[in-house]
Amino acid sequence: MTPEPAPEWRASAWLNTAEPLSLGHFRGRVVLLHAFQMLCPGCVAHGIPQAQRVAKLFEGAPLAVVGLHTVFEHHAAMGPESLRAFLHEYRVPFPVGIDAPGPAGDPIPCTMRAYAMQGTPTTILIDAQGRLRRQVFGVHDDLLLGAEIGTLLAELEQQRLEATDAAPAAEHCADGRCEVGAGATTRNPLP
Amino acid sequence: MTPEPAPEWRASAWLNTAEPLSLGHFRGRVVLLHAFQMLCPGCVAHGIPQAQRVAKLFEGAPLAVVGLHTVFEHHAAMGPESLRAFLHEYRVPFPVGIDAPGPAGDPIPCTMRAYAMQGTPTTILIDAQGRLRRQVFGVHDDLLLGAEIGTLLAELEQQRLEATDAAPAAEHCADGRCEVGAGATTRNPLP
Amino acid sequence: MTPEPAPEWRASAWLNTAEPLSLGHFRGRVVLLHAFQMLCPGCVAHGIPQAQRVAKLFEGAPLAVVGLHTVFEHHAAMGPESLRAFLHEYRVPFPVGIDAPGPAGDPIPCTMRAYAMQGTPTTILIDAQGRLRRQVFGVHDDLLLGAEIGTLLAELEQQRLEATDAAPAAEHCADGRCEVGAGATTRNPLP
Amino acid sequence: MTPEPAPEWRASAWLNTAEPLSLGHFRGRVVLLHAFQMLCPGCVAHGIPQAQRVAKLFEGAPLAVVGLHTVFEHHAAMGPESLRAFLHEYRVPFPVGIDAPGPAGDPIPCTMRAYAMQGTPTTILIDAQGRLRRQVFGVHDDLLLGAEIGTLLAELEQQRLEATDAAPAAEHCADGRCEVGAGATTRNPLP
Repeated sequence: MTPEPAPEWRASAWLNTAEPLSLGHFRGRVVLLHAFQMLCPGCVAHGIPQAQRVAKLFEGAPLAVVGLHTVFEHHAAMGPESLRAFLHEYRVPFPVGIDAPGPAGDPIPCTMRAYAMQGTPTTILIDAQGRLRRQVFGVHDDLLLGAEIGTLLAELEQQRLEATDAAPAAEHCADGRCEVGAGATTRNPLP
Repeated sequence: MTPEPAPEWRASAWLNTAEPLSLGHFRGRVVLLHAFQMLCPGCVAHGIPQAQRVAKLFEGAPLAVVGLHTVFEHHAAMGPESLRAFLHEYRVPFPVGIDAPGPAGDPIPCTMRAYAMQGTPTTILIDAQGRLRRQVFGVHDDLLLGAEIGTLLAELEQQRLEATDAAPAAEHCADGRCEVGAGATTRNPLP
Repeated sequence: MTPEPAPEWRASAWLNTAEPLSLGHFRGRVVLLHAFQMLCPGCVAHGIPQAQRVAKLFEGAPLAVVGLHTVFEHHAAMGPESLRAFLHEYRVPFPVGIDAPGPAGDPIPCTMRAYAMQGTPTTILIDAQGRLRRQVFGVHDDLLLGAEIGTLLAELEQQRLEATDAAPAAEHCADGRCEVGAGATTRNPLP
Repeated sequence: MTPEPAPEWRASAWLNTAEPLSLGHFRGRVVLLHAFQMLCPGCVAHGIPQAQRVAKLFEGAPLAVVGLHTVFEHHAAMGPESLRAFLHEYRVPFPVGIDAPGPAGDPIPCTMRAYAMQGTPTTILIDAQGRLRRQVFGVHDDLLLGAEIGTLLAELEQQRLEATDAAPAAEHCADGRCEVGAGATTRNPLP
């Protein structure tokens, strides 16, 4: 199975970010896309806290956590105003897109349809080349999610090492010293 | 300290019940009143599940669990439509009143003000005579809440026994047999 | 069902107490007897932490928490030396009796047999008159245990009030003031 | 920091395995070594359940979970007989070595000393080349542990792919078909 490019996101609005975010924006970083509904109990109890912990634990790593509000029921109860209050009260720090409504008569929003999600919560991993690598519906185990993130970060590190071997070093200079490939370091790299 | 009568509730609407409920409706039963906001994380994670467990565990006892939606912030995000979806998704089975708005300019609703609640979640216990016996702001320990409920149920049982001793037995007859004070039995009475 | 006197305990040794403890020692107080084995996962994960929380939360109330080590399997692995280390590491503060071995050939110890316990953990409630009021095998819900404790404490309080009405007040004087029936107050009495 | 070879283990006995296990036995596989004491509350509540979940979740992957009983206190309370009962009651399925006693007068056992462990629980990761890559004292987060395991498994996969490219394919033939590098597949490989 060769991984396929992840479908582009379609959001009608974004919260927690100054500008709209496309998939291309994250090229070179692993992306954890967390699709949720603010009134979905499994999202509130498990999915969102897990995404928050990932965002915090991998803060220095080339990994982005992005939320996607994929409302497919109770649309009137989960409008932008309610979502904004929800993100504030639950202290969700990462960008959240509001999935664009589907065509007339379809309660399923666009991105949810494009990824063929089965419901919420759905956890999606996209690699640094923008390819869809993992999609899990329901509660996802921390150990397995961690292993998947570790695998994608290790792949990215390997690619950087190979690029560094082949090409003149990409330097990052500051404070009177220069580092090679400094952006690739994770917060807790294995020696 | 002699317990005082609990202030009357003032609700603008009720959900999960065919008719509005007043305090007087519950005379003769202990009442657990759970005041919450649907976007309050402590309510969703602790208070509401606890109230649901009380409702289930004490199903046969003379105890009523009642919810009160005391919105004092993000009013636009927690309207009746959103609350209705919330109660459905979280499978809240007990009646929930929507606390009546305060006077113009006051974000605190009427009943919340009358009880001088400090925030949400707030757990309130009212005895079978309609008196306010306990009010706890924040997460309330299961063991302590259980003990308070047990105390009020035991008081009620004691009153029924005394009433039974003093007066002609209040009979409850059905299925060809009559019981004395049958309504007082709890689901798991101590021998 | 009239409650029966609880069977006397038979312990071969006691830990966390200067002297052996009999049931009679606790007359006038409610007793939570927690029967456990130090290598029983349900005891370690649920029963013992619950007994510890009861001991702490009801510290000022007329309630005693007592442990009973009822070993009925792996006897060689759970001797007094191992139990002593266990109580130290798990910071168990209440007295623990070691249930006396059964007659030759019987792996079930004496008190466990006398109460007809089905296994561990077993939670037992004995009222202030020394009567067996509740015996639960397995994980016991905090709310229900709390309610049972509350019921027995309320009964005890009622008896003290009646005794106070009938007899000259039992006074408790200190710091220039005298209280009536002061010993009956719980840490968090309901008003 | 170049990773160093992990110190050899020294065990006085092994449980849950027919024969003693040395580090060399696991060459070609990632090793999670969980050092614990059977009466250490943090080990029982967190470390051992985590090691059990790793063993189950990564069952098909080139990863071995090994326990090490590193007793440094209460030696008399945690002898082999007690450990055997503990492993049975807690359903620990993986091999467990009993760390060899230190020299006379040293309460710290040999392997614990060789790894300079600070206490229990200690979680150790050794890569497929036998090098020490991670050592964490105390509760270790599932997401981080998962990421570390994922990184080491991804490295191993990368090495196998490179070996496959450079050399004639290492074939694994059975049931009438042959697979290349079949041993490297994980249970839930990313596409």
